[in-house]
Amino acid sequence: MAEKVTAFAPASIGNVAVGFDMLGLAMDGVGDRVAAERVDSPGISVANVYGLDGEIHPYLSSDPDHNTASIAAKALWNDYGDDAGVELSIYKGVPLQSGMGSSAASAVAAAVAVNELLGTPLPVEQLLAYALVGEQYASGGLHADNVAPSLLGGLVFCPPVLLPEVVRLPVPTGVSAALIHPELQVNTAHARKKLAQGYSLDQWLSQQGYMGGFIAACASNDIDLIGKTLKDVIIEPQRAAAVPCFAAVKEAAERNGALGFSLSGSGPSLFALCRDHDAANVATAMEQACRGMGIDCQSFVSTMSARGAHIEE
Amino acid sequence: MAEKVTAFAPASIGNVAVGFDMLGLAMDGVGDRVAAERVDSPGISVANVYGLDGEIHPYLSSDPDHNTASIAAKALWNDYGDDAGVELSIYKGVPLQSGMGSSAASAVAAAVAVNELLGTPLPVEQLLAYALVGEQYASGGLHADNVAPSLLGGLVFCPPVLLPEVVRLPVPTGVSAALIHPELQVNTAHARKKLAQGYSLDQWLSQQGYMGGFIAACASNDIDLIGKTLKDVIIEPQRAAAVPCFAAVKEAAERNGALGFSLSGSGPSLFALCRDHDAANVATAMEQACRGMGIDCQSFVSTMSARGAHIEE
Repeated sequence: MAEKVTAFAPASIGNVAVGFDMLGLAMDGVGDRVAAERVDSPGISVANVYGLDGEIHPYLSSDPDHNTASIAAKALWNDYGDDAGVELSIYKGVPLQSGMGSSAASAVAAAVAVNELLGTPLPVEQLLAYALVGEQYASGGLHADNVAPSLLGGLVFCPPVLLPEVVRLPVPTGVSAALIHPELQVNTAHARKKLAQGYSLDQWLSQQGYMGGFIAACASNDIDLIGKTLKDVIIEPQRAAAVPCFAAVKEAAERNGALGFSLSGSGPSLFALCRDHDAANVATAMEQACRGMGIDCQSFVSTMSARGAHIEE
Repeated sequence: MAEKVTAFAPASIGNVAVGFDMLGLAMDGVGDRVAAERVDSPGISVANVYGLDGEIHPYLSSDPDHNTASIAAKALWNDYGDDAGVELSIYKGVPLQSGMGSSAASAVAAAVAVNELLGTPLPVEQLLAYALVGEQYASGGLHADNVAPSLLGGLVFCPPVLLPEVVRLPVPTGVSAALIHPELQVNTAHARKKLAQGYSLDQWLSQQGYMGGFIAACASNDIDLIGKTLKDVIIEPQRAAAVPCFAAVKEAAERNGALGFSLSGSGPSLFALCRDHDAANVATAMEQACRGMGIDCQSFVSTMSARGAHIEE
């Protein structure tokens, strides 16, 4: 068995507009890495957490009880580990509190790395429960809409009522995601606490109608129907005001042909689904709109079939 | 063009447990017939409404402004009719206020018959809007969960937010519907008025999770997942008490292997989805449980790909 492995886990778009707490989409090319190395000291420890600049991360803790990666790794180690230990090095590629599933990516990468170091006692699907333990520490709730796509890739339906079972949805061909991350921070746990706890029957039926239509549209590759259904009438109206550039970026996305647009997770990141050939233009237009309001940002474009977490050679 | 045609439109299961107001399933072998005949007197008239026994129906009106069939036919005639008229004869095969989509079947059959008499100016999908005008008279709301499957057959997703567009869902193979109609009546419009208007976030997320999972399960033919998701945690708890045999019939269905069970529409009919080879047993057991409580009933078994409304030769 290997003595040291590195796992990559992608960023992800939580909720995907229609499926609050139950739908998530993996992103190509941006994610966290966790290196796991066998050591003599027992249990899980964290050597260092590195930021995007390669330096020691200024905020994230290397206390193994206060980091989603090590919390996930500890849960797995408790069930399948041995008398020795594992030291993690965490390389953050996903910005913190960005709405891009940063805490989930670390938890997933750690679970995948430790599982590999143990000789893969578990199939990937069964790592979900362990990654969720880490995610729950960060977000305060049992929702898998970042962990599941980060682990499995693509578009994953993961309603709390079915966990730990999740459903990989068919991904429409010809559709890409464009995302911008404005340089703002939104704390997911705080954002959750501010949500209204009661909804009218009409609100509920509208959102359920959009979600069901979106799932059916993905299954039948009906791109027009994706455009008609990718709407959040429940959560987005409560959260959009926390992202000052929301309206301007949405207008830019729609003007450039986006099929639908919303917050990624609780924001501040904003995403659009687009026809493949529109995605680059939409990303550029969203970036310009955001910068036009004096807010710095980065943009990303991804297929809808991004690969899930995996060991890097 | 024909001078007289007869259309058949099947009964249907509204809501299908997971999709209140937005999901419906057509039933094989039971439905309404509407004969439409050209006459000189202008506009739409109703010759007679016949009951299940072949006699003049004791309750249903032949006033064309008070019958779902003629109301649907009038709406279509107003847009595409000529100076002459059409006389309808309505043959009820679906019991009234049964939760089997009786009013919808009449409205659909009338729209299909009149469209045929006019030389089919409209494709079948576009008849939905006209049939809905009739259904709306009976039920008081704009919901297509009986009209859409009765018109199109099979399993149809028809959320109010997408109307008049509806989505035909893939139908899982190997799954049948078993339904019993206890000899009780539930008025749909009254049943709607009694529903709570507010729901908690948790309730909403649970039901949305079940519905999304069910749609995904149908698309991927995952029968186990159908069993895990065919649940109504929102509406059924409010309506089950109106059907005294509900609990006994549910227990009988589940004991005989039903994948899931609920009210058909607002009841009193009760349905289960089952593996094909269990369907007859489940129907028999449900009937016995209902009769065991002193309530007479009929049972029906149907594939999930029942044919929609059509002209009979």
